[in-house]
Amino acid sequence: SSSSTEDPDQFRTLLQLCVDRYYVSPGQVNTELFQRGMCCNYGPLGTELRRNLLDQWWRSVTRSRAQVFGINTNSGLDRTAEGQGPLRIVDYENLKQLLERQELSKEQLIQEAHLLLQRCPSVRTNLLQGALEQFVPTLGVVSRKLPFGLAETGLCLQPAEGSGCPAEVTQTSLVWFCSLHTSSQWLDHWTRQRLKWWRKFALSPSDFSSSEVPPEELEQAASRGVRIMYSFPWGQESLETLWNRGNAELLHTHQGVRSKLQCRDGRKSIPHVVSITGNMDRGMLAFLSNSLQQLKRQDGKQKLLQRKVLKLHPVLAPVKVALDIGKGATMEQRQVCEGLLLEFLEAKISTWPGYLETLTTSLEQLNAKYDEMGVLFTVAIGENTLESGLLQVRSRDTTIKETMHISEVKNFISKYISAADNI
Amino acid sequence: SSSSTEDPDQFRTLLQLCVDRYYVSPGQVNTELFQRGMCCNYGPLGTELRRNLLDQWWRSVTRSRAQVFGINTNSGLDRTAEGQGPLRIVDYENLKQLLERQELSKEQLIQEAHLLLQRCPSVRTNLLQGALEQFVPTLGVVSRKLPFGLAETGLCLQPAEGSGCPAEVTQTSLVWFCSLHTSSQWLDHWTRQRLKWWRKFALSPSDFSSSEVPPEELEQAASRGVRIMYSFPWGQESLETLWNRGNAELLHTHQGVRSKLQCRDGRKSIPHVVSITGNMDRGMLAFLSNSLQQLKRQDGKQKLLQRKVLKLHPVLAPVKVALDIGKGATMEQRQVCEGLLLEFLEAKISTWPGYLETLTTSLEQLNAKYDEMGVLFTVAIGENTLESGLLQVRSRDTTIKETMHISEVKNFISKYISAADNI
Repeated sequence: SSSSTEDPDQFRTLLQLCVDRYYVSPGQVNTELFQRGMCCNYGPLGTELRRNLLDQWWRSVTRSRAQVFGINTNSGLDRTAEGQGPLRIVDYENLKQLLERQELSKEQLIQEAHLLLQRCPSVRTNLLQGALEQFVPTLGVVSRKLPFGLAETGLCLQPAEGSGCPAEVTQTSLVWFCSLHTSSQWLDHWTRQRLKWWRKFALSPSDFSSSEVPPEELEQAASRGVRIMYSFPWGQESLETLWNRGNAELLHTHQGVRSKLQCRDGRKSIPHVVSITGNMDRGMLAFLSNSLQQLKRQDGKQKLLQRKVLKLHPVLAPVKVALDIGKGATMEQRQVCEGLLLEFLEAKISTWPGYLETLTTSLEQLNAKYDEMGVLFTVAIGENTLESGLLQVRSRDTTIKETMHISEVKNFISKYISAADNI
Repeated sequence: SSSSTEDPDQFRTLLQLCVDRYYVSPGQVNTELFQRGMCCNYGPLGTELRRNLLDQWWRSVTRSRAQVFGINTNSGLDRTAEGQGPLRIVDYENLKQLLERQELSKEQLIQEAHLLLQRCPSVRTNLLQGALEQFVPTLGVVSRKLPFGLAETGLCLQPAEGSGCPAEVTQTSLVWFCSLHTSSQWLDHWTRQRLKWWRKFALSPSDFSSSEVPPEELEQAASRGVRIMYSFPWGQESLETLWNRGNAELLHTHQGVRSKLQCRDGRKSIPHVVSITGNMDRGMLAFLSNSLQQLKRQDGKQKLLQRKVLKLHPVLAPVKVALDIGKGATMEQRQVCEGLLLEFLEAKISTWPGYLETLTTSLEQLNAKYDEMGVLFTVAIGENTLESGLLQVRSRDTTIKETMHISEVKNFISKYISAADNI
């Protein structure tokens, strides 16, 4: 019998698993970044998971309706001095040269240092400003008709808290322009959409929730806010935030030139802004945390075994198939693996070349490893595959092994993935 | 009759077209960045083109063979002081506070400023260093067996030339680890692969070429180099560079601990590194430049007309279908457009909502616009579509208009795109 357990050390287990199974690169600084929901060094599986997640976000936002356009804004490198943030990119060599100029008095030195720093480009801390700037060039596309939105994903720097270093975050941003009287409805609309999106990929959808931001926590410009939260073992954290921001920032960005900004939605008006900002590094952490199942079961000899499975949604799972060698490990079996791998890759099925590892482990150990990696299917090429063409396909979710002919396996897996994609 | 022309102003035409047709956002600084092959503010079409290009690169590199693994490395924010580059991220507020400390002498001020800057994180200027650091954690995956590669895409900062500002570049990086005696063969292998890739999407493949780097231009660590070049109207520029780098940098990154780095390829050895680094912003510029056709033709009345078409490869084209309204512009026609759009988006066909623009232009003007955008097909919903279910589908490449039933058009376009994708 098997039962799901609420392990108090579950999160430590997850962290270790992420490092062992190529989601997160080893190193203390790195796992700390990962825990804090910051962008860290991801291993091959973490990299692919992040790609899948960003892809799904992009698709759900830009392809949900006609009026959402993707943009790419520069990280603030060519901003004018006015809009600049506190984090600046400084060429240390230039500053060194300045500090070495003996002829300057202390006052002159200070003045020159200020001049140098004011000329330095700043680093963006969010994607909102870029979208506000791109508002005007996009007006032509929609003939000044509201509502419409601008979508972007990218890295943003988060200023250091206390003595720490600034760190990067993989941000998603949808900036939605609409009329004043519809803005609160749109905030509700996008809250529902976003919550639905998070829950769609969850193993326990109820761990994802939305909650209204209390008035005392509202950001400067905002009249209303909603947070999409995830219940981590240590408490709730915000994955995505929606703000009803009014139009003051938009006006400020365009120096208050109202005629440039005017849109139509029934009557003429300056659009109001609803911003939807997500942290996809923390999103990854949430889905990984949500999908880890620890199952205890007793084997025939009454020995207590623990099975850890990363039940990531088929669409998010970074590896769909692992190719490995069952009994025997002949050169011919390897060649069959290599051929099958190329066939899978051509069909755009992300495949793990397990047969490259030459360690002799039991098939049971292999399965445990692939379960921890969250691999959907394991295909084992046995000695008899060479003669009969038959191989074993094991499912992560059912643990059932099916015998299949080598000519059928690609279609079987392709169909499974595209079915999961179309839900 | 029509003929292709070699316009001396062709590049100025291209720049204007990119701004007018939502590839590049307006603004002088922005178009200058774009011309220099740097990352700029891209409009909706430029954003999608960059996505498609990066996607194709990722696919071609990580799915070409078993031994290429994707990674994501931090932009150098948690590097130790040793490996730091000249570009530092400074919190201006902290530095301001320091400069305002009256009690410090000039010497003390200088010393404190150095201390502050040394603690500041540096910004990465390439992806190589990250891959060299991830070499050791990846060894487990391949059981220390050569060859294998690490792939990454991301933004890197390019130090300013002269008095200019530093600018960002969308870099692609494959770092390939192999034995000394195979490294030159691998350099040749990857040169062939990469050149084939660039030419696959080109209208005039011969504009893309490869050339050996002359000995006097070799980078410090490199024993051999090859550049993939594109013939821009103003001359050749490099899109991707392949270097045979030896193993000195790898050893340096891991403090010379040879035992940690040892791999097997027949015998034990420290791997040699072949780096393949691309600039995908310049790649976009190359494909845009390569795909612009200017055709002169005389109409029935002997009037000279010029037609500009952006013949981007179907896989790269940011918009596959434009949906527009032919004769008449009733509410019902709009609703048909809206329904068809959602159907297309669901089938993952990138669609342009031309019907949102309410300007009354002739169908001829519309076609000219969509040709300049590089849209593969234009679907026009006429008045009679409502009764007969028939609509017109115009092809960018043949300019032929086909009448089709509304129930067939999605499959027709899907098939066309997937056929182009599988070549």
